[in-house]
Amino acid sequence: MKLQVTQENLNRALSSVARVATSKNSLPILSNVLVKTSDNRLSLSATNLDIGITHYIGAKVSEEGSITVPARLMQDFVSSLPAGIINLDLAETKLKVTTDQYQSVVNGIVADDFPVMPAIANGKTWEVPGALLKKALQQVVFAASNDETRPVLTAVILHTFEGHLYMATTDSYRLAEKDLGPNTEDVTLLIPASALQDLLRILGDTTDPVRVTHDDQQVLFQVGDVELVTRLIEGKYPDYRKLIPQSFATQATLKRADLVNVTKVSSLFARESAGSVTIEVDEASGNLSIRSVASQLGENNANATASVIGSGSITLNSRYLLDGLNALSGETVTFGFNGKLEPTLLTDAKAPDYRHVVMPLKG
Amino acid sequence: MKLQVTQENLNRALSSVARVATSKNSLPILSNVLVKTSDNRLSLSATNLDIGITHYIGAKVSEEGSITVPARLMQDFVSSLPAGIINLDLAETKLKVTTDQYQSVVNGIVADDFPVMPAIANGKTWEVPGALLKKALQQVVFAASNDETRPVLTAVILHTFEGHLYMATTDSYRLAEKDLGPNTEDVTLLIPASALQDLLRILGDTTDPVRVTHDDQQVLFQVGDVELVTRLIEGKYPDYRKLIPQSFATQATLKRADLVNVTKVSSLFARESAGSVTIEVDEASGNLSIRSVASQLGENNANATASVIGSGSITLNSRYLLDGLNALSGETVTFGFNGKLEPTLLTDAKAPDYRHVVMPLKG
Repeated sequence: MKLQVTQENLNRALSSVARVATSKNSLPILSNVLVKTSDNRLSLSATNLDIGITHYIGAKVSEEGSITVPARLMQDFVSSLPAGIINLDLAETKLKVTTDQYQSVVNGIVADDFPVMPAIANGKTWEVPGALLKKALQQVVFAASNDETRPVLTAVILHTFEGHLYMATTDSYRLAEKDLGPNTEDVTLLIPASALQDLLRILGDTTDPVRVTHDDQQVLFQVGDVELVTRLIEGKYPDYRKLIPQSFATQATLKRADLVNVTKVSSLFARESAGSVTIEVDEASGNLSIRSVASQLGENNANATASVIGSGSITLNSRYLLDGLNALSGETVTFGFNGKLEPTLLTDAKAPDYRHVVMPLKG
Repeated sequence: MKLQVTQENLNRALSSVARVATSKNSLPILSNVLVKTSDNRLSLSATNLDIGITHYIGAKVSEEGSITVPARLMQDFVSSLPAGIINLDLAETKLKVTTDQYQSVVNGIVADDFPVMPAIANGKTWEVPGALLKKALQQVVFAASNDETRPVLTAVILHTFEGHLYMATTDSYRLAEKDLGPNTEDVTLLIPASALQDLLRILGDTTDPVRVTHDDQQVLFQVGDVELVTRLIEGKYPDYRKLIPQSFATQATLKRADLVNVTKVSSLFARESAGSVTIEVDEASGNLSIRSVASQLGENNANATASVIGSGSITLNSRYLLDGLNALSGETVTFGFNGKLEPTLLTDAKAPDYRHVVMPLKG
């Protein structure tokens, strides 16, 4: 293998793929990145056996070949080099990396040992606008579970319902759902949230469409010159739509920034009560008040003006409430609930494609 | 105690003092901040028994008094409040903190139990320009030792020598010395580096002179409305000046940024050899090259153009070399050394008031 690439391209490709390479795995080669020529391009790939990412860049190839090299060292090294031409020259398993000023030898492992993600055969392919996918991921991914004992809840469900494509997550304490608009494909995919966090990073500020190809086992996302493939999670996702309340005994509409501020301040006094805060809405005064359950440190009460229908109170986890408020991006938020033991819905009337549910705490 | 302060002032004062309050200490009151009226001012104080910081702010006091309250909660809380008037109202040990929108109660501990740093009696007082002190601290504090088994090396020595005031540190691996200019006081103070890190934070961008008052036990720094007092370290500081080489067999002068870059890149390949890099200077070619000692991962060689007198090579810890290069702030650096086992001196001909020594590794 012998070729020339620019530092800018090589650095960009290493940034895309290197994070997936992990030294935590027992297989040492998984902390390496596969560097491989194909025609007049160079591909860089990394995998943790569940997720694989490949980034293609232009290169001036004078000798074909492939090698795997330590991902972290290679990324740190290339990102420290000045912009300009980098020569890669492989001698057995030693990759010589040279520029005008630097001469390095990086010890590699032969590419034959590198695990390759199985290809998707006979998959269906469709497209989603990149900016829409990015926004949707930002609004739902964080509400997926980290608890590996219930694998389906660690997924983001991407599914068609009544002609629309939806993306949703729930960790059983809160729930987020985004309507991605009309879609003719009939799909139900349970995609690991961790893979979609990597996809979010790769999407960057792309305005290109993202090509999605899937079969029963895997899904492939193609964004420009980058490909991310991940295994799907098996199992049946809970019927989460049953948890989204449709009508409300109490509803308050107020500035989102106001509710964020009073919740943040109240949460400081709720550290010893696992973040528990009680929200009280009063129709007569048009007031929303938030109270931290008294603790050793002290207590807090804060008020915000709201447009109110019906009075009532509910106790929530302030962190989940803040996460939901941050996922909404409009100027106002509508906060609706029924009894003390029923879920609360956060919505923005101006952006009805996103719904966020927070389950109550027993007050 | 009953008073009004602005959120801006209270927040500023809490930011100055709260960091010294620590919950690690076995004495619970040390995680509190003392809030105390004095005439028409409010003082906020925190201490860890070694260092004490007090910040005075203006207040509209209608009832004198004092209380201690949890520093972290109080700081987080006040910094989250909107700008404007805050009312403080003490009822027994409960401090009511109210604004238009927020009503809080913070549970305190009576002020009588708060440890007070002893006052400095019959101390000498002198002044240092704030900007000069700040620059000096930035250039020397980091080279003090963290090793509590040799307490004197955890100090910054501030001492007079031949009519100049000097500040110096050494952890026995490297050494930094700053000339603060002519000074008529005859002092030798061993000040804990940790206290001077707090002072650095307090100095901010002040252009005011800093008043220094000391006796045999303590030193007090006064910067605007803030006072920092710290215990001095007892013992005899080593005669560090003997370690600073005066003449050189090999000397290279080059762009500081060039030496920083090649050292950074080389250090990536030196991770398995505890950061060891070898610098070779060649008079004939006017070249400085830096080589990472070969390791499992690979090896690196990098070059920079320099103005050279004498040839030679030396092995250094790349982290210490980078620390020294970052403490110099000029465009060029002069790198001088003698034998392989003798100290290296980093200087900037345009700023001769700062000298940085790095001890060699056995190559």
